[in-house]
Amino acid sequence: MRILLIGAGGTLGAAVHQALTARGHEVVTAGRSSGDLRFDVTEPGQITALYEAAGAGGQLDAVASAAGSVPFKPITDMTPDDWTAAFRGKVQSQLELVRQGIGRIAPRGSFTLITGVLARSPVVTGSAASMANGAVESFVRAAAVEIAPQRVNAVSPTVFTEALDAYGDYFPGFAPVDLEEVARAYVRCIEGAETGRILELGH
Amino acid sequence: MRILLIGAGGTLGAAVHQALTARGHEVVTAGRSSGDLRFDVTEPGQITALYEAAGAGGQLDAVASAAGSVPFKPITDMTPDDWTAAFRGKVQSQLELVRQGIGRIAPRGSFTLITGVLARSPVVTGSAASMANGAVESFVRAAAVEIAPQRVNAVSPTVFTEALDAYGDYFPGFAPVDLEEVARAYVRCIEGAETGRILELGH
Repeated sequence: MRILLIGAGGTLGAAVHQALTARGHEVVTAGRSSGDLRFDVTEPGQITALYEAAGAGGQLDAVASAAGSVPFKPITDMTPDDWTAAFRGKVQSQLELVRQGIGRIAPRGSFTLITGVLARSPVVTGSAASMANGAVESFVRAAAVEIAPQRVNAVSPTVFTEALDAYGDYFPGFAPVDLEEVARAYVRCIEGAETGRILELGH
Repeated sequence: MRILLIGAGGTLGAAVHQALTARGHEVVTAGRSSGDLRFDVTEPGQITALYEAAGAGGQLDAVASAAGSVPFKPITDMTPDDWTAAFRGKVQSQLELVRQGIGRIAPRGSFTLITGVLARSPVVTGSAASMANGAVESFVRAAAVEIAPQRVNAVSPTVFTEALDAYGDYFPGFAPVDLEEVARAYVRCIEGAETGRILELGH
């Protein structure tokens, strides 16, 4: 398959890239500051340009998103701009990848989005992240019924084993998940037949 | 208790108003175009002004939100502005009611927000509504751990029995829920001890 991978320069994106390449797929990487195509998916207009650039090389069979940034702060330190940043950085960006992609990818193509354990389990300073993850997960269930036979799913991991040093303190006692296992979930979403699913890893 | 009720002019808000008044509470009503206090909660600055106006009459013990509007359209007809409208109309408005209210309501006060069945079960044209409801529900679980001993919960009803004529076609085969039962859930959230809960009614 020909797969557009957003955020391939990140920790997760690199693992997904490796897993998809190992399965023999052609992966077109995209990101704000790295990848084959340089676009900022927090801007809806840049998603249009990204799809035009990616489509020029042949029809896409799948879109995989491994990008999404949200602010982490105590709720009392959040501002309206922080909520908006979380919405634009992880919600609207992924919703627009789906919406704009429907008419551009293969008739039976798929979208795989990224959420996370905070949709379900809270941690201190994570209220914006929880909001964003919950938004994307409910969107996935809703969009799936409208876009069939195209498919849309979300991968929802807990903290990565490889990121425990940096982020473990935010997730005390949470069982980590290996990046390899998360990347495998992308393969399942892309090559499989499921839709409207939230693949929860480690929670 | 002294309770600030947002959206008291709506179908749900009127039922919540009646239930809270019947329990002997003092209800201060607020809304864009009706109520004791006229403010647009989709504007964070107006929430500040609303709390100042409401607080001038005495400390608030609880905030109950029964307002939230989102666009309903096929996903292919949605625009970036529609996602933003759903975010501002039902998500940011309620997040800001909590965030700005933390320092303003009673030390053991509560917030009760409104979501809906579409957070979990999809219907056609409901992708923005699902997104918004999922965002608020995950936020509620996250915010609860940070604001204790203040509390925050969400009431998540399916279609109202009283609204079946207008909206029943969107929810084929969904069991409706009586407004009285939904209003009772607000009483439970406000007078009870629960926090971080999503009270699902009819789903």
